[in-house]
Amino acid sequence: MRELTIEDVRDAATALGGVTRATPLIRNYKLEEMFGTEVYYKPENLQRTGSFKVRGGYNKIRSLTPDERGRGVIASSAGNHAQGVASAARAAGIPATIVMPVSAPLTKVTRTRGYGAEVVLHGEYYEEAFARAEEIQRERDLVFVHPFDDPHVIAGQGTVGLEIFDELPDVDTVIVPIGGGGLISGIALVLKTLKPDVRIVGVEAAGAPAALKALEVGKLVTLDRADTIADGIKVRKLSERTFDYISRFVDEVVLVDDEEIGLAMVELMESSKLVVEGAGAVTAAALFNNRIANVGRKAVALLGGGNVDINLVARVIERGLTRAGRYALLQVRLVDKPGQLTAVLEVLAERHVNILDVLHDRAAWRVPIGTVDVAMLLEVRDAAHAREITQLLRAADIDARLAHQQP
Amino acid sequence: MRELTIEDVRDAATALGGVTRATPLIRNYKLEEMFGTEVYYKPENLQRTGSFKVRGGYNKIRSLTPDERGRGVIASSAGNHAQGVASAARAAGIPATIVMPVSAPLTKVTRTRGYGAEVVLHGEYYEEAFARAEEIQRERDLVFVHPFDDPHVIAGQGTVGLEIFDELPDVDTVIVPIGGGGLISGIALVLKTLKPDVRIVGVEAAGAPAALKALEVGKLVTLDRADTIADGIKVRKLSERTFDYISRFVDEVVLVDDEEIGLAMVELMESSKLVVEGAGAVTAAALFNNRIANVGRKAVALLGGGNVDINLVARVIERGLTRAGRYALLQVRLVDKPGQLTAVLEVLAERHVNILDVLHDRAAWRVPIGTVDVAMLLEVRDAAHAREITQLLRAADIDARLAHQQP
Repeated sequence: MRELTIEDVRDAATALGGVTRATPLIRNYKLEEMFGTEVYYKPENLQRTGSFKVRGGYNKIRSLTPDERGRGVIASSAGNHAQGVASAARAAGIPATIVMPVSAPLTKVTRTRGYGAEVVLHGEYYEEAFARAEEIQRERDLVFVHPFDDPHVIAGQGTVGLEIFDELPDVDTVIVPIGGGGLISGIALVLKTLKPDVRIVGVEAAGAPAALKALEVGKLVTLDRADTIADGIKVRKLSERTFDYISRFVDEVVLVDDEEIGLAMVELMESSKLVVEGAGAVTAAALFNNRIANVGRKAVALLGGGNVDINLVARVIERGLTRAGRYALLQVRLVDKPGQLTAVLEVLAERHVNILDVLHDRAAWRVPIGTVDVAMLLEVRDAAHAREITQLLRAADIDARLAHQQP
Repeated sequence: MRELTIEDVRDAATALGGVTRATPLIRNYKLEEMFGTEVYYKPENLQRTGSFKVRGGYNKIRSLTPDERGRGVIASSAGNHAQGVASAARAAGIPATIVMPVSAPLTKVTRTRGYGAEVVLHGEYYEEAFARAEEIQRERDLVFVHPFDDPHVIAGQGTVGLEIFDELPDVDTVIVPIGGGGLISGIALVLKTLKPDVRIVGVEAAGAPAALKALEVGKLVTLDRADTIADGIKVRKLSERTFDYISRFVDEVVLVDDEEIGLAMVELMESSKLVVEGAGAVTAAALFNNRIANVGRKAVALLGGGNVDINLVARVIERGLTRAGRYALLQVRLVDKPGQLTAVLEVLAERHVNILDVLHDRAAWRVPIGTVDVAMLLEVRDAAHAREITQLLRAADIDARLAHQQP
């Protein structure tokens, strides 16, 4: 295929018309106050299949020859690409096989099957699933749909850039997550063509900085390891193609760590009412932590997807609130007789403190005989509020202290 | 004020231009498959302040005389109305006092203060906060902003109906939550004027059916009690005004119970990536549970708000997944010696079952000496999957059973 141009992306947008939705830009007034500028989210978590991946997947599939379509497609993925390709194949009316690692969350397996794809579970890790997909591809003569190293896939993801420009032509900064680099390549190609002075900022997880490292040494690198809760962008190596786009078009790459990502997920749920997965929330995390040198006058932060396992959402919330100082673990040692606990509860009730959980540890070997340890998980405003409560309990002659909780 | 007309709502929409956002309609393909028809969400959880309430609040405030504006407004609320009025008052540049019960979630108090309002915490329940607000209103000569019994408030909420009609002129069914009835009154007025054959369906929590009961007896009733997790619509009595609109314009009122509401919240997070509070999710719950007689060909379900306390989100998820059979509590009794637990874990690992929590109950008086009970919280596909795992453990000579968990 010749060099990709904006016309390829425009063709993709036309083809995607009835398949994907143009997600709306959502202004974020809290960030606007923080930066004194207009800030918008582009919520691709609200995209069909829960992420932008269906754009590239469908654009690849519609480019196939009739012969290729008859044979069907195969992809390997533990997440969004699986659902994107499965859904795109169904929209195009062709068979899809998706190889997923056995560790893939049940809901993602169920959903991918729900789009009519044949799901093969193989290997503990993505690499093994990928290798098995290559085997099956050869055995059955299927068409392999790569998650990012493919011009049709990149053109499909680039349609996000067209939508941003259509809705906000005077955008000057666009912030995009980087995993393999397909999404940012497509968006950067579009926006740098339409508006050469737009700034494109990429955001990676600090545990998987494949683009940043490659840019530093000026060539493709393979990370020894990739480790982050943002598993959608846990990638050890870009491709030559995406590295080339990123080198030419991306102005800045910044990193956020897992703690920042988790807190951003909580903030997005709490303030923006959006469920965003870790890989999708890195851009918001970069903004919340003031990681971007110049946010510009009209900035758009892309939220890549929302396919976080719902089980994990509950954990992320608890962890995030603990880190933010809004949960406190209070340890109280009481003489083991009736009424002791009541005294504690009265102090807490007076201060309108919400008790989320109580652990009554009577049998533990480390507690002196005749006493009982009670641990309570409290909802507090902040760390100072927790200290204030502890002091009130001590003033009431109760042996209380705050535990340094490591969730 | 004379009888409200659609022109009042159009005026409100113009005035709200720079203050609220026109929330987008979001197609829901899962519901479309279920009903064979087009179904859209109108996600007012994405509205500024996290709910539709800011529409009515601002429209009331902008109607005030210069003298009234100088005095400022007061409202009582534990939730959305507090944030809506506080934000609207700030947008209009006038002072606001909000009386909230002391039991109001910390985050809502913080947010209301964040909009610049003076927050007075008073009383355990809403009624006490309301009474205190009336006192302060008289003492300080403020303007009271009622959450639903006010024509300006109803006209403001009606702007939701205009937006639905503008985006989807051939809509034929609109599903709206009912609390005090202000929202459905405004929407129904607009849509029945523009398109008399549109069906308006109201949804109430089964624990607070103030509208349904009133319609049954043909006059306003006060419920003895209102009890539901959907606290935004936990209302014991409509007003004469809203009862009149509902009697004239609403075609059907249906109920959903708390379990259905909780599961709908989980489904909205998991599939639609939207955080919706209980009061906002009743419409989705009515659809998921096939509670509406005729969904029509183009249906819109309004999601009223997303201001659920984030602490509760984690609980709702766990509860919802347990009810949906996707958590299983496995009880295993082992001889208390090394290696026993490992055997259990091996069976679970082979079946790729995710263990969420383990409770090792060595000291309990009910366990025979020399044995140990282990309870494990597992993530499973469904109830059949849980039974299959239990049988596998028994086949491996392990004393295992499923507990009937009541979360």
